[in-house]
Amino acid sequence: MKIVLDAMGGDIGPAVNVEAAVNAARQYGHEIVLVGKQEQIRPLLVQHQTAGLTLPIVHASEVIEMDEHPAAAVKSKKDSSMAVGMELVKRGDADAFVTMGNTGGAFATALFKLGRISGIQRAALSTAYPTIKGWSLILDIGANADCKPEYLAQFALMGSIYAERALNVRKPKVALVSNGEEETKGSQLVQEAHQLLKKAPINFIGNAEGKDIPAGMADVYVTDGFTGNVIIKLSEGLGGMIKQMLREEITRTTPGKLGGLLIRDAVKRMSKRTDYEEIGGAPLLGVDGVVIIGHGRSNARAIQNAIRVAAQTVEKGVVEAIERGLEALPQISK
Amino acid sequence: MKIVLDAMGGDIGPAVNVEAAVNAARQYGHEIVLVGKQEQIRPLLVQHQTAGLTLPIVHASEVIEMDEHPAAAVKSKKDSSMAVGMELVKRGDADAFVTMGNTGGAFATALFKLGRISGIQRAALSTAYPTIKGWSLILDIGANADCKPEYLAQFALMGSIYAERALNVRKPKVALVSNGEEETKGSQLVQEAHQLLKKAPINFIGNAEGKDIPAGMADVYVTDGFTGNVIIKLSEGLGGMIKQMLREEITRTTPGKLGGLLIRDAVKRMSKRTDYEEIGGAPLLGVDGVVIIGHGRSNARAIQNAIRVAAQTVEKGVVEAIERGLEALPQISK
Repeated sequence: MKIVLDAMGGDIGPAVNVEAAVNAARQYGHEIVLVGKQEQIRPLLVQHQTAGLTLPIVHASEVIEMDEHPAAAVKSKKDSSMAVGMELVKRGDADAFVTMGNTGGAFATALFKLGRISGIQRAALSTAYPTIKGWSLILDIGANADCKPEYLAQFALMGSIYAERALNVRKPKVALVSNGEEETKGSQLVQEAHQLLKKAPINFIGNAEGKDIPAGMADVYVTDGFTGNVIIKLSEGLGGMIKQMLREEITRTTPGKLGGLLIRDAVKRMSKRTDYEEIGGAPLLGVDGVVIIGHGRSNARAIQNAIRVAAQTVEKGVVEAIERGLEALPQISK
Repeated sequence: MKIVLDAMGGDIGPAVNVEAAVNAARQYGHEIVLVGKQEQIRPLLVQHQTAGLTLPIVHASEVIEMDEHPAAAVKSKKDSSMAVGMELVKRGDADAFVTMGNTGGAFATALFKLGRISGIQRAALSTAYPTIKGWSLILDIGANADCKPEYLAQFALMGSIYAERALNVRKPKVALVSNGEEETKGSQLVQEAHQLLKKAPINFIGNAEGKDIPAGMADVYVTDGFTGNVIIKLSEGLGGMIKQMLREEITRTTPGKLGGLLIRDAVKRMSKRTDYEEIGGAPLLGVDGVVIIGHGRSNARAIQNAIRVAAQTVEKGVVEAIERGLEALPQISK
C-alpha cells in the first residue's frame, strides 16, 4: 500500500505531517509518500528514526494555502502539493491521497485530476459528526449547494458503502435530513429524494429531523451541501457558545469556580468523545480515487488516523463498490 | 387593548393559561378574552381574585390537539378555540390572538381566518433564538419548505420591523443564512435573495454562516422554512446532547459528582439565559392580524410574557408597518 500525504497541508505546517507519516509507516507498514516542498520536508524527516521505513519525498513547488480561493488556486498553482500528489494516484503510482489542507482546494483538484466515478453526477464532501452514541457520517457538507434528487440518492449510496467498508458499520442506517419525519414532509427536493432512497439498495430508515442528528438516529445523514454546511457550522458554533456560557456562569461565583476545577476531567473526557482526532479524516466521495481530507488543525495523531482510514478505504475497495452499487440504482442513474 | 388567549393551548392545559390571563390582566390592565371550553375555564377562573379585571370567556366547543395534523384539524374543527379566537380578531372584536397550542394548527387557522397582508406572498413562522449576546429572531422556521427569493426578502422586512417595534431593537441587523460569507456563496435561492436584501429598506449585514447564529452576529436571521426548521431542531437536539454527555462524564467520578453539585447554580443561570420563558412567544408574520405563538410547555410566566409581546406588537403597529414597508420594496413585490 502506497499512500500520498500532503506534507504542506493544515494549519500547523509540515512538521506535524512528517511526524504522522513516520508513525504511520512504522505502525501500518505502508509506504508513505510525502509530497510538497522538499527543502522543508527533508530537514524535518532526518530528525526521525526512519530506518526500514519507506518514506519517499516527491517535490511540489507550490502550496494551496488554507485561506486561498479554491478555483483560482487550482488554476494558477499547477505544481501544488495537491496537484502533484493526486497525479500520483491518477497514474496508479499511489493508492490514496490524504490532506489536512484547504478543503475546497482538495475538492477542486480532485475533480480536475481524478474526475468523477463513471455514472456519478456530483462528488460530495463528507465529515464525521459526533453524536451521543458515537460518530455518524454526514454528506454533502458544502460542495453542492443546489442538488437534484438523483444527487442525494447517489450521496446516500456512497455514504452507506463508505460507512460499511471503511468505518466497519454493519448495514449502516441511512437517513435523509428533513423538516419532519413523515415522507410527505420536506422541500420538493427532499420529498423526491425520499422516494428514490426507498428504492435504493441501502438500509434507508426515513427522514431525520435536526434533533435526530446529534441523537445518533442514523449512521449516515444525507443532505444537500447548503443544509449540510449550515448543520456542520451551526453545530461547531453552538458547541462553542454553550462552552463559553457555561464558563461565564461557572466563574461568576467561588463555589462555581471550585466546581469548574472538579469537573475538568469530565469536560476533557467529553471533548475526547467529540474530538475528530480519532476519526482523522473523511472522504471526498464520488471522485475516481481515494481522497481523505482532515481538519486543518489536526495533530500528528489525527493525521495518522486519516492515513489509516485512507488505507482501509483502499483495502475494502470503496471506489469499486460504488461503481458496482451504481449499477444497482438503475431507476436513479437514468 | 383586548387580547384573546387560547385557554386550551399548550401541553399543561387550561389552568396555566387562566393563571397567566389573570396575571396579565392585573399587571398590564388589558382585557384578556379566554377562548375555549367554558365548562373547563370557568371553574379555574373562579379560583382567582379577579375583582376589577376584565376576563370574559368566549366558548369554543373544540380543541386542536398538540399532535393533530394541522390541515385536517382546521378543516374538521370549525369551532376550535383557535378558529373562534381568531374570528374575534378578524371581526375587530379583539386586537391580538395568543396561543401555546399546535403551531401548524395556529398557522393554518390564521391563514384561513385572517389571510395574508395584501402584497405578502407567504406568511412565516418565527422564533426567538438564544445567542451568546441575548436573543435573535429567526424566520421562517418551517412554514415554507420551498421559497422564492422574493419570499425571503419579505421575511427579512417583516422580521426587521418586528424586531425594531416589538422587541425594541434599534436598526436591527438582518443576516441571510448561507453556506459562506461572500455574497457569491449560497444556493441559487440565497444568491438571488442576497441581491434583493441589499436593496431592501433594512439594515442588511450580509450572509450568516451556521456558526454566526449562536454567536449573535445579527438580530434577525432570514432563511427558508426547510433550513430554518433544521436549525431550530438541531440546536435543541445538540443542546440536549451536550447536557447529557456532560452529565454522563461528570457522574463517572466522585470529584466530578461533587463538582456537578457546585456548578448547579451556574447551570441554572445558564438555562435561564437560554430559556424561552422571558420571551414568551414569537409572531406569525405576514398574516393580517397579530398572532403570537408560544411553546407548548410554557408556564404561566411564559404565557404572560407572550401576552405582553402581543400587546406591544399591536401598540407599535407592526402589521401596519409591514403594509407600508412593502410599498418601499417595489423591486421585490413586483
